[in-house]
Amino acid sequence: MADKIRVTVWNEYRHEKENETAHSIYPDGIHATIKSFLDQNDDMEVRLAALDDPDQGLPDEVLNNTDVLIWWGHMSHHEVDDGLVERIRQRVYREGMGFIGLHSAHHSKPFRAILGATGNLQWGDEQHEIIWNLFPSHPIAKGIPACFDLGEDELYSEPFFVPQPDALVFGAWYEYGNVFRAGLCYHRGLGRIFYFQPGHETCRSFHNPYVQKIITNAVRWAKPQEITVKEHCPYIAKGELDPENPEKKN
Amino acid sequence: MADKIRVTVWNEYRHEKENETAHSIYPDGIHATIKSFLDQNDDMEVRLAALDDPDQGLPDEVLNNTDVLIWWGHMSHHEVDDGLVERIRQRVYREGMGFIGLHSAHHSKPFRAILGATGNLQWGDEQHEIIWNLFPSHPIAKGIPACFDLGEDELYSEPFFVPQPDALVFGAWYEYGNVFRAGLCYHRGLGRIFYFQPGHETCRSFHNPYVQKIITNAVRWAKPQEITVKEHCPYIAKGELDPENPEKKN
Amino acid sequence: MADKIRVTVWNEYRHEKENETAHSIYPDGIHATIKSFLDQNDDMEVRLAALDDPDQGLPDEVLNNTDVLIWWGHMSHHEVDDGLVERIRQRVYREGMGFIGLHSAHHSKPFRAILGATGNLQWGDEQHEIIWNLFPSHPIAKGIPACFDLGEDELYSEPFFVPQPDALVFGAWYEYGNVFRAGLCYHRGLGRIFYFQPGHETCRSFHNPYVQKIITNAVRWAKPQEITVKEHCPYIAKGELDPENPEKKN
Amino acid sequence: MADKIRVTVWNEYRHEKENETAHSIYPDGIHATIKSFLDQNDDMEVRLAALDDPDQGLPDEVLNNTDVLIWWGHMSHHEVDDGLVERIRQRVYREGMGFIGLHSAHHSKPFRAILGATGNLQWGDEQHEIIWNLFPSHPIAKGIPACFDLGEDELYSEPFFVPQPDALVFGAWYEYGNVFRAGLCYHRGLGRIFYFQPGHETCRSFHNPYVQKIITNAVRWAKPQEITVKEHCPYIAKGELDPENPEKKN
Repeated sequence: MADKIRVTVWNEYRHEKENETAHSIYPDGIHATIKSFLDQNDDMEVRLAALDDPDQGLPDEVLNNTDVLIWWGHMSHHEVDDGLVERIRQRVYREGMGFIGLHSAHHSKPFRAILGATGNLQWGDEQHEIIWNLFPSHPIAKGIPACFDLGEDELYSEPFFVPQPDALVFGAWYEYGNVFRAGLCYHRGLGRIFYFQPGHETCRSFHNPYVQKIITNAVRWAKPQEITVKEHCPYIAKGELDPENPEKKN
Repeated sequence: MADKIRVTVWNEYRHEKENETAHSIYPDGIHATIKSFLDQNDDMEVRLAALDDPDQGLPDEVLNNTDVLIWWGHMSHHEVDDGLVERIRQRVYREGMGFIGLHSAHHSKPFRAILGATGNLQWGDEQHEIIWNLFPSHPIAKGIPACFDLGEDELYSEPFFVPQPDALVFGAWYEYGNVFRAGLCYHRGLGRIFYFQPGHETCRSFHNPYVQKIITNAVRWAKPQEITVKEHCPYIAKGELDPENPEKKN
Repeated sequence: MADKIRVTVWNEYRHEKENETAHSIYPDGIHATIKSFLDQNDDMEVRLAALDDPDQGLPDEVLNNTDVLIWWGHMSHHEVDDGLVERIRQRVYREGMGFIGLHSAHHSKPFRAILGATGNLQWGDEQHEIIWNLFPSHPIAKGIPACFDLGEDELYSEPFFVPQPDALVFGAWYEYGNVFRAGLCYHRGLGRIFYFQPGHETCRSFHNPYVQKIITNAVRWAKPQEITVKEHCPYIAKGELDPENPEKKN
Repeated sequence: MADKIRVTVWNEYRHEKENETAHSIYPDGIHATIKSFLDQNDDMEVRLAALDDPDQGLPDEVLNNTDVLIWWGHMSHHEVDDGLVERIRQRVYREGMGFIGLHSAHHSKPFRAILGATGNLQWGDEQHEIIWNLFPSHPIAKGIPACFDLGEDELYSEPFFVPQPDALVFGAWYEYGNVFRAGLCYHRGLGRIFYFQPGHETCRSFHNPYVQKIITNAVRWAKPQEITVKEHCPYIAKGELDPENPEKKN
């Protein structure tokens, strides 16, 4: 890992060019808004990628130099190349790249493949949402109060079909009667995954200071750990114990 | 374990004698209402116990013949004898008795001691509550729809200070903006523990058919398993491996 | 789900036809041996399937009438059709089919895809192995002592690259210094997954009565639960709450 | 929390004064040896405490200024004052103090009370032990290879009666056929708990550089998080949501 956390914010980046409301809230795209608040941190180096960029924004030289990949996709999940999905998944599993799925990324190909899930849920129009802090001592909840008012965001409701998380950090309340597990942490292979619910393209959630704080915390939490063990499947002779340290015998 | 599941429903049983509303909803006590719906199951044998009974309702001959202990207490947690708490805890840990904590049992001595928790939370007056099914394939969620309307119950809100559960089965929504992890499963020692939020003494929750179904499911889930391994701390000689099966050597 | 648990035992079924030792231990294939001990249970109905059968043994009419799929594959994982893998995965996620992966299934396509894992580990030649019971109150550990001697089986060693399990039931000790998380439970979508380490084609593990007991327990644990909630992704109007019960409004 | 992590190493500190072997390995006590390797870290400030010190080494002014409490006790668990145990437990739960239990601390009063466990296990004389890294991306496994040879330490064997951990980081192999979950992480209240198996008083484990690295990592992992949420049980009015931020209304 480089000295700074190398973050790539991937965005489908179509709504903001086609939908007037989305454009007015995120004139340069959701990814640019995310970059602008992450850029305020000296320990991060942020770059943008979009579906319509060459190689869908993630050629090898970008992906292999990304420590944490943030993903926002919505209507065009199916256009994401399966080969790219597999490269993302292997980079998480084998090299410990962090993956942060935002909002509609619950249905994105990389999120489903990395986690082992359909990501299904019940959804509906925007309504008043409040985020609750369920795990105040978790690093991603640092600086977050017991709850905060998100204003309006798209409804994502239970039942949410994802594996039980390694940590459930946030819950969501919606005005018309629904709840949602809104912030979830997973480990897969050598990598860490965080999913966070807020962020519809016509809502102002990425301008909310607490949402920004949570995503910033999540980048630091999800960055690759310093790992000396290899993620592979070697043959070892009797008593050889550790192929990386061949002198290690029983 | 006997053929039938031997359930003891323990109740503080004071509100229902002193408070008119509580008395009108639960004329013979919350425990009697719980017994009456559990009694409809051929596989259960239900008995009642109360704080003001001799030995606080749980002399050895009762506790040691209880497969699942259901606990409802509220204002008099501090009166429960510490020796009894320790006997309950050891029966859960060492003999696999199930423990089901209802509503204000979050602050009861046995719940806190068994789990390792303060059980703290934010609380408030009754309001509209909806229960959500977060784990539809869990045995305790059998027959429970995606959500159900509880009517009014006392507010219990996050942050709820309990260990991360082995399974999070239900979530609660409250009208004025709060959420709660309302149904939680734990394993401690050889025993199983379930906590369920509904059940204030002046609310009708224990008459709700879904609440009744959940408690019934929980009794079946929490009953002692058939276990051949002892919960103890024996010295074993080199290669003796299993003191229960002394012939088992390496 | 039918009255009986409909089990399909899928086997690569090549070693036992080509390798003399494997043939002598499992003359009709590993799957036939598994069927023969499962057949002793009145609550199970067992059928066989193999890689070289038409439709790789799992046409729709078989897969869609399977409650629990047991999988043994080794050298020919890559030959398993990707479309079949996806059908298996969706049947687990959406319809709650149980999946039991045995031994080298840690590297099989369905196991990796369902779970979200590479399944990598360190491996080596057969050696003395002992299985330890880490979760005596788990249903899959019913009737299993603190430990049992497996005789010789192929070495599978940590680090094992799988997600943290919902329950870790068994651990393995190997003569030359290795350990392994040998029995692991997961939930994915509506389904349950169990992985169990023993079972190299030239070892006698599937003749071991404790291994047979564990696989039998696992079939009962992994069978589809009675679930009333749908695994889908519906749009719901404000306050409609539950699309399966359209009258359920807030 | 102060700038440095304020660590207190508590030791029963009797064996090293009475047993010749223990004295020769840990002449100033196990706690002094732990202090000496922790002292090499600029971010830690380490102090010693022992059972026979006034107030059993942990008067309020010490305990309340401890960020991480390391605990080694063995034969005199019963002498530890119950009031002290309760103060330790509350400091972990309510103020987020870290607690690291070493070796025979599995049976210590604070470990059992904080966690909710008997801590029972099978034990036996010293034998060859190897520690395996089961979670290479965990912060406590930083710098630890796939496995390392511990030499001889006291046998602690499964079944180990503790709650399922939030993270299982290390496993142990023993020469005569046993395995053990040797490194376990928990969250209780606002605090973090780590248990680590090695460290019998007549074995050299605390001189092992990997054991030292693990305990050092664990101190950094277990230190109190920056938390803005209070661990308490307040009444809140309808829509008041957060008593710490009374203006937060729905």
